[in-house]
Amino acid sequence: MPQRVLVIAPHPDDETLGCGGTILRKAREGAQIAWLIVTGMNVGSGYSSDDMKVRESEISKVRALYGFSEVFRLKFGTRKLDTLPLAEIIGEFANVFKTFAPDQVFLPYRMDVHTDHRAVFDAGAACAKWFRYGSVRQVLAYETLSETEFSLDPRSVFQPNYFVDISEFLDRKLEIMTAYQSEMGEFPFPRSIEAIRALATFRGSTSGFRAAEAFQLLRERY
Amino acid sequence: MPQRVLVIAPHPDDETLGCGGTILRKAREGAQIAWLIVTGMNVGSGYSSDDMKVRESEISKVRALYGFSEVFRLKFGTRKLDTLPLAEIIGEFANVFKTFAPDQVFLPYRMDVHTDHRAVFDAGAACAKWFRYGSVRQVLAYETLSETEFSLDPRSVFQPNYFVDISEFLDRKLEIMTAYQSEMGEFPFPRSIEAIRALATFRGSTSGFRAAEAFQLLRERY
Amino acid sequence: MPQRVLVIAPHPDDETLGCGGTILRKAREGAQIAWLIVTGMNVGSGYSSDDMKVRESEISKVRALYGFSEVFRLKFGTRKLDTLPLAEIIGEFANVFKTFAPDQVFLPYRMDVHTDHRAVFDAGAACAKWFRYGSVRQVLAYETLSETEFSLDPRSVFQPNYFVDISEFLDRKLEIMTAYQSEMGEFPFPRSIEAIRALATFRGSTSGFRAAEAFQLLRERY
Amino acid sequence: MPQRVLVIAPHPDDETLGCGGTILRKAREGAQIAWLIVTGMNVGSGYSSDDMKVRESEISKVRALYGFSEVFRLKFGTRKLDTLPLAEIIGEFANVFKTFAPDQVFLPYRMDVHTDHRAVFDAGAACAKWFRYGSVRQVLAYETLSETEFSLDPRSVFQPNYFVDISEFLDRKLEIMTAYQSEMGEFPFPRSIEAIRALATFRGSTSGFRAAEAFQLLRERY
Amino acid sequence: MPQRVLVIAPHPDDETLGCGGTILRKAREGAQIAWLIVTGMNVGSGYSSDDMKVRESEISKVRALYGFSEVFRLKFGTRKLDTLPLAEIIGEFANVFKTFAPDQVFLPYRMDVHTDHRAVFDAGAACAKWFRYGSVRQVLAYETLSETEFSLDPRSVFQPNYFVDISEFLDRKLEIMTAYQSEMGEFPFPRSIEAIRALATFRGSTSGFRAAEAFQLLRERY
Amino acid sequence: MPQRVLVIAPHPDDETLGCGGTILRKAREGAQIAWLIVTGMNVGSGYSSDDMKVRESEISKVRALYGFSEVFRLKFGTRKLDTLPLAEIIGEFANVFKTFAPDQVFLPYRMDVHTDHRAVFDAGAACAKWFRYGSVRQVLAYETLSETEFSLDPRSVFQPNYFVDISEFLDRKLEIMTAYQSEMGEFPFPRSIEAIRALATFRGSTSGFRAAEAFQLLRERY
Repeated sequence: MPQRVLVIAPHPDDETLGCGGTILRKAREGAQIAWLIVTGMNVGSGYSSDDMKVRESEISKVRALYGFSEVFRLKFGTRKLDTLPLAEIIGEFANVFKTFAPDQVFLPYRMDVHTDHRAVFDAGAACAKWFRYGSVRQVLAYETLSETEFSLDPRSVFQPNYFVDISEFLDRKLEIMTAYQSEMGEFPFPRSIEAIRALATFRGSTSGFRAAEAFQLLRERY
Repeated sequence: MPQRVLVIAPHPDDETLGCGGTILRKAREGAQIAWLIVTGMNVGSGYSSDDMKVRESEISKVRALYGFSEVFRLKFGTRKLDTLPLAEIIGEFANVFKTFAPDQVFLPYRMDVHTDHRAVFDAGAACAKWFRYGSVRQVLAYETLSETEFSLDPRSVFQPNYFVDISEFLDRKLEIMTAYQSEMGEFPFPRSIEAIRALATFRGSTSGFRAAEAFQLLRERY
Repeated sequence: MPQRVLVIAPHPDDETLGCGGTILRKAREGAQIAWLIVTGMNVGSGYSSDDMKVRESEISKVRALYGFSEVFRLKFGTRKLDTLPLAEIIGEFANVFKTFAPDQVFLPYRMDVHTDHRAVFDAGAACAKWFRYGSVRQVLAYETLSETEFSLDPRSVFQPNYFVDISEFLDRKLEIMTAYQSEMGEFPFPRSIEAIRALATFRGSTSGFRAAEAFQLLRERY
Repeated sequence: MPQRVLVIAPHPDDETLGCGGTILRKAREGAQIAWLIVTGMNVGSGYSSDDMKVRESEISKVRALYGFSEVFRLKFGTRKLDTLPLAEIIGEFANVFKTFAPDQVFLPYRMDVHTDHRAVFDAGAACAKWFRYGSVRQVLAYETLSETEFSLDPRSVFQPNYFVDISEFLDRKLEIMTAYQSEMGEFPFPRSIEAIRALATFRGSTSGFRAAEAFQLLRERY
Repeated sequence: MPQRVLVIAPHPDDETLGCGGTILRKAREGAQIAWLIVTGMNVGSGYSSDDMKVRESEISKVRALYGFSEVFRLKFGTRKLDTLPLAEIIGEFANVFKTFAPDQVFLPYRMDVHTDHRAVFDAGAACAKWFRYGSVRQVLAYETLSETEFSLDPRSVFQPNYFVDISEFLDRKLEIMTAYQSEMGEFPFPRSIEAIRALATFRGSTSGFRAAEAFQLLRERY
Repeated sequence: MPQRVLVIAPHPDDETLGCGGTILRKAREGAQIAWLIVTGMNVGSGYSSDDMKVRESEISKVRALYGFSEVFRLKFGTRKLDTLPLAEIIGEFANVFKTFAPDQVFLPYRMDVHTDHRAVFDAGAACAKWFRYGSVRQVLAYETLSETEFSLDPRSVFQPNYFVDISEFLDRKLEIMTAYQSEMGEFPFPRSIEAIRALATFRGSTSGFRAAEAFQLLRERY
């Protein structure tokens, strides 16, 4: 039976920054992969309809590039997750977990600066209890350049303990990342080709691969 | 190719307390499993020749019960590892890593009360660098009843993130544990049938199995 | 003067899971014990009037079984504490602290998965300042099976440093727990007789008792 | 070019408790120093117009005593920051960072008991990203007597690593603190002359000065 | 039955710096208190016979001032504990634990800069297992001015959670401290009257007493 | 007065891996910089006289390339520091601190895998007490590729909080690194041009520079 992978992205591009190479590799290995996008632009949050059109086209493009089996979109307001009862987010996640029955789940890191990332982590953690959604076997936190390394909270440094070889997939990850034109910037901006490549190279040298993505294993049931 | 598992035990019985069920399960799954016993009794450490005979017979019995592919014995003095240069222990471990080429390695927990456990962890960690012994893919720390839960060092609590279903193997683990007669005691002594069963039951309820062993994943390369 | 103990439960059953045995022992030792139930079911949260009747009857039964001196009920909406200003919860707690003047206080653990538990901890901590409510001499965090051990937040593992012998009270604790029929499940579900017994047995073996409850001492003034 | 220092105070008096001596010293050294007061009293929060008059006069007095270059006042409701979307607080901070272009920023500690302190830390951290406000070179957390040392959250103890000699400024710091009459109390109350002096003396003995303020360096770019 | 308290001091004066006031209070409350001095001066460590005479007279004086029931002296070489097998230190401690059968034990803090303090902590922790010395009910770590606050090890800050009111005993503690003339210095030196008083005052303001000593509870069995 | 910088390297090349760019920048800024090499090759440790000649020539070359004011060499046996009493290492460091009177000190990270790094950290920390060597104003830990990122000790991840812009010095740092021919390897080996450049690029993107070295500030007195 093919592995079922659920990648939870607070905003589109987090999935690529955090686990783009891993998604590509899992796809090559035959996994069914779903993309859960938690927030969405809307007029109430001050986005123009042009912004929103661009974003839709980015999502379509990226979806195709990865070949996701499914895309779930919750469209909660961007940068507003901390104003919602967590129970509401959990409720929406619950439907996704029930429908898709993932065995591997990717979450953003609990200590990221962005409040949306924190809420997504907490909601994901609540769904990871085995007696809620017994399909889940492994939960991993990914690192998001421009968020994870900017935490000022003492004791919050990302502690990678799980490294995925993405040597064959780094170029394509970078290609996909350029689909998010509005999110990219010039180096030393963290969401730039140079910075993404440097991180993958550094993580690779730590794990013996030409390029790697690093994760923190949160829980695995074997 | 069968998985190659190396279980590093500071003293005989640590392998059973920490990962007896997992060893049995891996064996059933076809893995090659080696037992590295780091210390040994000797007259200089105040053991009688009777003690030593009993211990030899325990080791033979346990070896047979698990069906280990190989047993490596370093025979460093018990409770004396902290007096040796770590480089010497690393040197001996290195031979084992070279010879056996493990992909999965089990270590005691760094914060155990016993100084032998700490030295073994440190030596194991030094050998886990990919550019030293590239065969290693996964390193896990196990918990040792009567050591791990007795640490008083603030910030040292064992943080399990990897749970192995040993429902089918708990009874046999308990059986094997009784081979170490001199190490067992009456409940509430931690090395007793009741305590071992209780821990496996508790770890099971955390992971959705009737019985489980819990580990802390230290590093995985995928 | 009898000891005055305040057990703060986000939801009914947390007091029993976390400190049922300790409550029974304290009662035997002559303490005055109050139960502060922070949340309540209500129609707005989607509970039927049948749910609510069952819950009321459970609370009455449990109250009688423990012989609480007082029961305080705040009836904040279940799973909604994170949507309230913490100051509002603190305000309600303040009345209880003023009225009951506890010297020993039991709180849920700060890192529990459940957002209600976190809010209750934070409100309790705010009331524990000596210059607010000078009666408080000791504050302890308890562990709640099905919440505490499911945290995925790195660095959040419960660190017990205070163990209470409940050998004589475990059976009765289990009996009381069965009053919460709707909350119990079949092992390996964490809220089951087997899991509760296993945890008490494991905590006992760590502290030299046939059964124990484990706590983290947060602050004591002697 | 003179150094530009931004002191962010959730409530008036936090700046003095946390970094009064340092402000005085920086002023003597020629720095431009701005005071950002995040909350304000208002009728809706239950303050009387007399309370508010007193507070205004305190602020004027303290402003003059320090000789702040600028005072920014956001007037969010006291003890209500946890009910606002963090994005809203960040938005207001952003204006201040843009206008004042600080190179050194002082924040309250993330783990303080007071929810207002936590929100202020999080909003400040979000503004400290170099690609947002490139002027920022150093971010430090200060300790607030009556908040920082009362945290019950395990693992939250303030870890000072940066000590400022305020030997010449302690007396004046204490003088300024008395301007906040309603906030001061009798020792052993933490906001008292004796307690403030004791902390400065203790921090001094740790760093080789007759009096010191202690900080935790969160990030510096050199 | 009177409480039996064991204060373990790596070097004479640690007991006073860390728990002088608490010893005096326990004595007043009728406890039997023993002083375990782990190291001793000797010629081999470069001490002159004059140094040693002074030290002997200090120990006699302090012993009388506290009225210790017993004084155990192991006379391991000062600043040499890290060169001994920990098992040897544990062996000597074991005799003391067996003989004196303490129920309350005071240890230096694990993260102190001084290697002797670390070894003493580790040896004490090994003896605190209930199945070794069942008399032990409570183990507390004390803070030693000039060691504890000088740790540079990230994550090592002392986390006090247990505060003892020594208001009536601070003056006498200071008096006793002056018996160690060679160890005292001029403020801001940490082992000075001003610094010791400031710390007691600060810890007092945190716990509601005019003066307090702060401890970290490591383990209690109730 | 020029700044006085002391870079403590357990082995030659640690100073370059950890702070090569920073040394070059400090030199350009006019600082006096000393290099303290703690260990040395010797025949007893199994090095050939050829090894030793190569090493001597590397040290000469590197010394000239940085233009160090002074080089202190202690020549303790490589990989043997854990067998020495720490007091002996501290004694040797003390001479250097007295002679050179540094105000800024660079240490390896406490949690590096290599036991030599740990001993050097501990000895350096002991010398950093202000009442020992009052010249010291700032102590920073550097990261050593091939050691720091390989720690398996849970809770030991390097937490950079101090970033130095080395954009103008990266190329020269890489050049100097190639002087250590025997220590370099082919990427993904961590001590390779690609890995060093990637880390500097990643640290740069975190701090807004084209290249940076990252440190953890341990203590600063201002």
